[in-house]
Amino acid sequence: MTQNRYLIIGGVAGGMSAATRLRRLDENAQITVFERGGHVSFANCGLPYYLGGIIEERASLLLQTPASLASRFNLDVRVRTEVIGIDSAAKTVTVRDLATGRESTEGYDALVLSPGASPVRPPLPGGERMLTLRDIDDVDAAMSALSVVPRSALVIGAGFIGLEMVENLVHRGLDVTLVELGDQVLPPLDPEMAGPVAERLRAAGVSVRLGTQVAEIGADTATLDDGSVVAAEFVLAAIGVRPDTALAQAAGLTIGERGGIAVDDQLRTSDPDIYAIGDAVEKTDAISGEQRLVALAGLANRHGRLVADVITGKRIRVRPALGTAVVGMMGLTIAATGWNEKLLAARGRNIRVMHTHPASHTGYYPGAKPMALKLVVDADTDAILGAQGVGGDGVDKRIDVIATAMAGGITASELADLELAYAPQFSSAKDPVNMLGYVALNAAEGLTTSVQWHELDAARAAGATLIDVRTAGEYAEAAIPGSVNIPLDDIRARQAELPEGRLIVHCKVGQRGHTAVRLLAQLGRDAVNLDGGYLTWAAGTDAARTARDSAVAILKA
Amino acid sequence: MTQNRYLIIGGVAGGMSAATRLRRLDENAQITVFERGGHVSFANCGLPYYLGGIIEERASLLLQTPASLASRFNLDVRVRTEVIGIDSAAKTVTVRDLATGRESTEGYDALVLSPGASPVRPPLPGGERMLTLRDIDDVDAAMSALSVVPRSALVIGAGFIGLEMVENLVHRGLDVTLVELGDQVLPPLDPEMAGPVAERLRAAGVSVRLGTQVAEIGADTATLDDGSVVAAEFVLAAIGVRPDTALAQAAGLTIGERGGIAVDDQLRTSDPDIYAIGDAVEKTDAISGEQRLVALAGLANRHGRLVADVITGKRIRVRPALGTAVVGMMGLTIAATGWNEKLLAARGRNIRVMHTHPASHTGYYPGAKPMALKLVVDADTDAILGAQGVGGDGVDKRIDVIATAMAGGITASELADLELAYAPQFSSAKDPVNMLGYVALNAAEGLTTSVQWHELDAARAAGATLIDVRTAGEYAEAAIPGSVNIPLDDIRARQAELPEGRLIVHCKVGQRGHTAVRLLAQLGRDAVNLDGGYLTWAAGTDAARTARDSAVAILKA
Repeated sequence: MTQNRYLIIGGVAGGMSAATRLRRLDENAQITVFERGGHVSFANCGLPYYLGGIIEERASLLLQTPASLASRFNLDVRVRTEVIGIDSAAKTVTVRDLATGRESTEGYDALVLSPGASPVRPPLPGGERMLTLRDIDDVDAAMSALSVVPRSALVIGAGFIGLEMVENLVHRGLDVTLVELGDQVLPPLDPEMAGPVAERLRAAGVSVRLGTQVAEIGADTATLDDGSVVAAEFVLAAIGVRPDTALAQAAGLTIGERGGIAVDDQLRTSDPDIYAIGDAVEKTDAISGEQRLVALAGLANRHGRLVADVITGKRIRVRPALGTAVVGMMGLTIAATGWNEKLLAARGRNIRVMHTHPASHTGYYPGAKPMALKLVVDADTDAILGAQGVGGDGVDKRIDVIATAMAGGITASELADLELAYAPQFSSAKDPVNMLGYVALNAAEGLTTSVQWHELDAARAAGATLIDVRTAGEYAEAAIPGSVNIPLDDIRARQAELPEGRLIVHCKVGQRGHTAVRLLAQLGRDAVNLDGGYLTWAAGTDAARTARDSAVAILKA
Repeated sequence: MTQNRYLIIGGVAGGMSAATRLRRLDENAQITVFERGGHVSFANCGLPYYLGGIIEERASLLLQTPASLASRFNLDVRVRTEVIGIDSAAKTVTVRDLATGRESTEGYDALVLSPGASPVRPPLPGGERMLTLRDIDDVDAAMSALSVVPRSALVIGAGFIGLEMVENLVHRGLDVTLVELGDQVLPPLDPEMAGPVAERLRAAGVSVRLGTQVAEIGADTATLDDGSVVAAEFVLAAIGVRPDTALAQAAGLTIGERGGIAVDDQLRTSDPDIYAIGDAVEKTDAISGEQRLVALAGLANRHGRLVADVITGKRIRVRPALGTAVVGMMGLTIAATGWNEKLLAARGRNIRVMHTHPASHTGYYPGAKPMALKLVVDADTDAILGAQGVGGDGVDKRIDVIATAMAGGITASELADLELAYAPQFSSAKDPVNMLGYVALNAAEGLTTSVQWHELDAARAAGATLIDVRTAGEYAEAAIPGSVNIPLDDIRARQAELPEGRLIVHCKVGQRGHTAVRLLAQLGRDAVNLDGGYLTWAAGTDAARTARDSAVAILKA
């Protein structure tokens, strides 16, 4: 019996999934895993929480060791071992033992590249003090930097990982400055959804600096591009990752337009015996069909398993990527799937957008938490293109349900029909996802036309009047400037007071607004609903003001 | 303009959804809602929690009043008003004001029946002391019975509502006996899934009496059919509901084989101007295509909205019902969707069954809770037929995702591909739903063949040997009698020790068992995996023993 030789470069999510699956499919093969770092199969998503002290034991980050993988899966796992060259003609790789510097050559029948992606390090004066967080060596370095008990920290980049770092540094008691080049935190979200996240950060004492870059890092401070100086004894960059393609490039493998290793629908690179998976690889986007970089552990694991199937002779189907993601931060859960409004609008896609503000479960059962949900829908087909959620509880569940609906080709309107588990402490008889379906149905059927928070000024400039249909008490508390208050329950009686022309109605979240639009339409009026009501408008307007203010600050500097 | 006259019988979930939607679609109509009870739109799913004191204010159960519905939706809502007859030829109903006894006649263009279902009251000697829980009047009566501070309670029926009642009575400090005619709690679940629920009840001090009926209710005790007498100062029956069809029957409308009002795919009864929705109505089952009674608030609400669409001239599509349900009890979440194994097996369906025992999120992040998941799959088509979950956290999310997958036609194997939101405190890189997909894939591809816990004895009788592949430490703690311990990591070295013939391997949850099966199969052995491992076997075996014990107790009596 011939013994197949499988070599795998990279021993974390994708690489190790491939190696163990290969073993389950081919007991006889010789399977070798090369890992440049000191550890394989570690909990990379847990690193920020170990820094913050929420995960107490370093050992709990180390899920497998070369020894455990040898005894269970008969794998030859070599850490601190770098593959420095691939000879695809000879089907060999050159390997360097990083401890001894010794080089050797290994032959393969199939080679799997799972090198991952490296944190981007902006080239800054003083930048050598900047830490990043990719592996156990990095976390050890960061822990050592924290052991001198700094009082201040600077986090560069307000993406998912950046926010996890901020939470954990605040948890350790540090004064944190968060610097983000974009004009909002969490770039995968739309601004009105990200606004409340920035507010939560500020409420926790974090200095959030949007539209700003770090110009220079000093001994225990940093200078921003607006000239301000911030305390920065501990500095961490989380501005994104770049696929590790150097080895693939050197081997002459095709690199895609987005800078990742290009693979076909069987995860094969441009060389038929070399496969690639994980964060270094371009994936097909589920919404646009384009190639895209998506650095997510779930996809790496899944593709690791699939590549083992391909290598052992199966034909596979790789699903296009939605890019579902979640982050927990300071009591908020923030999750998203698919595309956001700003990206789709920039592409000129014909979309419908809807915002809701449901409770995590029935209001009459204690402990319900508010959330904001957003659904972006193809206006022509009613297909769901993306969803975002921010709230205290149950957000991950709703985004998971919507991501599943997208995978199943369920349209936005059909979300109304989903039968989701209901008891008062878990949901409402109409789950928040069902409610999104109802809103989508009303929009699809033309029962209610909406304007978005960012379209309001233009609509009013064109002559529309804004009618606030909340109660007088709600109106007195806070209202959109220039709105006229006619509570929903009074509209029938006070019809005569309604001004001529188009009416934009709004309530707190959009639901009473919908009822008002239905009523006014049947009274023969041209009425539209302010989508998401006061809450979405306020979040969007605040976010836009903050973005403007930071732009002004930069200009003044 | 002609004014349409819409009459609606029943003012809770379905009826009120229909009425308010009708108003939003037809501002000009005359819409009247008749409700026999004293309240409309109350929180019926909250009633047990009000009894238990978790919901403190009675007022929070009353979501709407006739007055609020009049001012917002211009509805004529008449409580304590019973419709006592329908003249479908004349298109009128006869209405009795229950306070005054006065009768009147109202004409309609369309009539909507949403009478709901009544709790079944077993006809027992002393049964007049037995309470049930359907509406605010019932909850007031129960609160009054609890105000004399009884020390003991008897709950008859261990379904979802029965368990909610038990939890709340325990919460109030009562000694509770739970009597269930079936041989397990929660009949919608399979026994090995329900077993741990019964255990939790017993651990909380509840006396769980399975396979038993109440024979007679005394002054402050009850006698069971095994002759035993239990303390029962407070007695509540929750053995199910029966559709309220008396009015429909008297009107000559067709009643289906399951005893509910029969409707067509447009929610029309056998009379073209009379529609019916909610718990009184038979629904099409999503798995079998048969008609079925499903008493769930979500469907009632949804169909209420749909019937308004039909009445105002739209064509609708009513989705077949899955019957997704959840209950929270004593820190456990128990949820299910679709059909269970025992029902499908009784129908002779060719099914595959899989059990997993994942954690609610990554083990390295604090607070992860174990759960048991079960998936039942059509062996021919890989279609998901049902799922069940029991655990401390995140069970509702996984069942919602699976119910959504079922609605979208996603197969069991395709669950592996779902992109679900992952961060360490919410899930694992391979979410429990993905893991079910992996298990389903391995089964569909024939990589691992499984036996179920209830098939183990027969398989061993046929000559198979049971190999426990857990560690020696786990084996020493508790093991299946007669099993041989060869830890997974030792199998390669100890091949010679393996007995001849078929091998059934098992670990704690099934995952190491799968790896062992793959290894043994490649070593040329006939090996199958004990599905769900030791945990599922123990839960099933315990449940079967308890059921046998209660049967023996009954026989002895």
